[in-house]
Amino acid sequence: MPHQSFHPPERTLMGPGPSDVNPRVLEALARPTIGHLDPAFVGLMDEMKVLLRYAFQTEYSLTMPVSAPGSAGMETCFVNLVEPGDKVVICQNGVFGGRMKENVERCGGVAVMVEDPWGTAVDPGKTDETLRAHPDAKILAFVHAETSTGAISDAATLAEIARKHDCLTIVDCVTSLGGSPLKVGEWGLDAVYSGTQKCLSCTPGLSPVTFSDRAVEVVKNRKTRVQSWFMDLNLVLGYWGSGAQRAYHHTAPINALYGLHEALVILENEGIENAWQRHDLNHAALRAGIEAMGLSFAVAKADRLPQLNSVMIPEGVDDAAVRASLLQAYNLEIGAGLGPMAGKIWRIGLMGYASNQTNVLFCLGALDAVLSAQHAPIESGVAVEAAMQVYSA
Amino acid sequence: MPHQSFHPPERTLMGPGPSDVNPRVLEALARPTIGHLDPAFVGLMDEMKVLLRYAFQTEYSLTMPVSAPGSAGMETCFVNLVEPGDKVVICQNGVFGGRMKENVERCGGVAVMVEDPWGTAVDPGKTDETLRAHPDAKILAFVHAETSTGAISDAATLAEIARKHDCLTIVDCVTSLGGSPLKVGEWGLDAVYSGTQKCLSCTPGLSPVTFSDRAVEVVKNRKTRVQSWFMDLNLVLGYWGSGAQRAYHHTAPINALYGLHEALVILENEGIENAWQRHDLNHAALRAGIEAMGLSFAVAKADRLPQLNSVMIPEGVDDAAVRASLLQAYNLEIGAGLGPMAGKIWRIGLMGYASNQTNVLFCLGALDAVLSAQHAPIESGVAVEAAMQVYSA
Repeated sequence: MPHQSFHPPERTLMGPGPSDVNPRVLEALARPTIGHLDPAFVGLMDEMKVLLRYAFQTEYSLTMPVSAPGSAGMETCFVNLVEPGDKVVICQNGVFGGRMKENVERCGGVAVMVEDPWGTAVDPGKTDETLRAHPDAKILAFVHAETSTGAISDAATLAEIARKHDCLTIVDCVTSLGGSPLKVGEWGLDAVYSGTQKCLSCTPGLSPVTFSDRAVEVVKNRKTRVQSWFMDLNLVLGYWGSGAQRAYHHTAPINALYGLHEALVILENEGIENAWQRHDLNHAALRAGIEAMGLSFAVAKADRLPQLNSVMIPEGVDDAAVRASLLQAYNLEIGAGLGPMAGKIWRIGLMGYASNQTNVLFCLGALDAVLSAQHAPIESGVAVEAAMQVYSA
Repeated sequence: MPHQSFHPPERTLMGPGPSDVNPRVLEALARPTIGHLDPAFVGLMDEMKVLLRYAFQTEYSLTMPVSAPGSAGMETCFVNLVEPGDKVVICQNGVFGGRMKENVERCGGVAVMVEDPWGTAVDPGKTDETLRAHPDAKILAFVHAETSTGAISDAATLAEIARKHDCLTIVDCVTSLGGSPLKVGEWGLDAVYSGTQKCLSCTPGLSPVTFSDRAVEVVKNRKTRVQSWFMDLNLVLGYWGSGAQRAYHHTAPINALYGLHEALVILENEGIENAWQRHDLNHAALRAGIEAMGLSFAVAKADRLPQLNSVMIPEGVDDAAVRASLLQAYNLEIGAGLGPMAGKIWRIGLMGYASNQTNVLFCLGALDAVLSAQHAPIESGVAVEAAMQVYSA
């Protein structure tokens, strides 16, 4: 029995990512492939670096997309900066801090954890104390926007604390890039990685990274070789560096880069401050609807990400049945909770292209209908109107 | 000055890869993105494994695409199988054997090299001798089809020698998969990696891999943790494994996987033996034209890959000028030589969708015209007809 072409269902993606992709990005993916050493492609790479610097709000020279998903971007930061025996202080307030620990240990480093409850921001005071107690720490690593919980942390303050203790920072900005204010240069972050499938309205598969000159110096002056050949920035830079030195390293994912370039052109065209405001507005509308239904958020207002809304699952409601019903009957994907939050929250994403009025109203209407059908204790029939009041204000 | 959408030139890609992409694959890339835990996507993953097993000609359970380019597929094989202190015998007859050495050393392993001249096949006798001299070797690594030279090696015989010495094999099949007979199961290869941008007619960015049960046992029984979190098969398997155990590891590059699935459906539809024959036929036609022009091949006939033709650059011809002229005036990309073969050969790819009659005739005509304009010592005006005689036979 021969296999057939795969035609995916048309979903509305309002989970933790991938989020809805801008149709312009999908169209760009299908453009004709060219060689990875073609002068036209080299021009694309040069533009990409400029556009990524805009998205990250930095002038760092080493700014480029890693040719693999966000978790490879994370690993690129750790394997290049951590040498055996290096001490890294890691702030954990969700899934991804734990993954950072895994990375440090696999590099032969020593991880010192600063634990905060899931769903809260990283505590700068505790971080400061920990760094003081570990004066030999080389790096502070933390997550700017925790995709597993929807909490944002104060990256500017954490970076300032790190500098005070003469530490580099490694910062996970997978979910913040393009959705929440992120000012890599002004805040002086040192090694930052992100993903394409969240607030950039692009498909998954690439990981934009940016490194401060200070971090690049550390990479260049390592005592040991980077344990990964694929992720060794000393080699990757020969390819993504300036024209004269360009050397073959690996074959770049050409068409995926067409898509990212298009997504970044769209972001530049909108203006990054406007993108941040759009994420705020749609979050406010969703929040109005969620609260009008009588539901509540898992994250305190001050720490809440606009692009990832963790909503408490009401008592007696069947988590999996609600999500399955939304997916099957409405073609609407929302996310489940992870780890200790599994079964307790839904994660409703309003990321990038998915952060729009239609999605907010559609999601509220669908959630209202599905919860009502389950006889959930909610106020039915008021959410959409509450959200519309925000848009009309 | 705002940036604009990128519209690539329409090239004919006859270099060492990426090669021409089947338009059906490009179209598939642009289909709507769905979530990486969506039941529909899980179905796609299951089909992908079946289709990849067909392409590799194996029943190995662990068969899947790594979410990154071929060099990450290579690294996936080495970091999972090599532990610190392990001895690996590597056959080098081109660029990629050297990269294998880099990988072994970065895993803390000891590389023992078997050197053969660039452009020749790996010598089984020398390999056997080396393994006999190193009875503590754990792995034999070699390249099936050397993309840097266009030489094919006898993978079946090399694997048999490895088994005799109780070694696992790691085999680079980046350029052979879909283009030359490759029978992973019958030959008993243990860890095989490939790329999508060569004979599969797909875009670059993914690396299909397949592991024998024997290799999987070695991975599962490691004394040390795999140094890469992203490439650790113990974790990746939780995601690509069977349905019940499926656990989030990283966000798969959804749309790139649509493209690979489509490419594999096309291959299944053509039939893999037919694809091998097509590559042979177009190579024969190109060869007839090349030889009619008075040009010669860098690789002896018995070792020659049909999908990668290394043609000697005639005396007095400006390598870079010819390639630039082909690219600029004809939109035709052919490849340069690498390493010791730089400036001495051109690499003309006839891979996947690019292996067709139109490309062969177009390339011969263009090469004839450009070389004639450079007053190269060739027989002009006969190449296309010589190739046509092969097609008419």
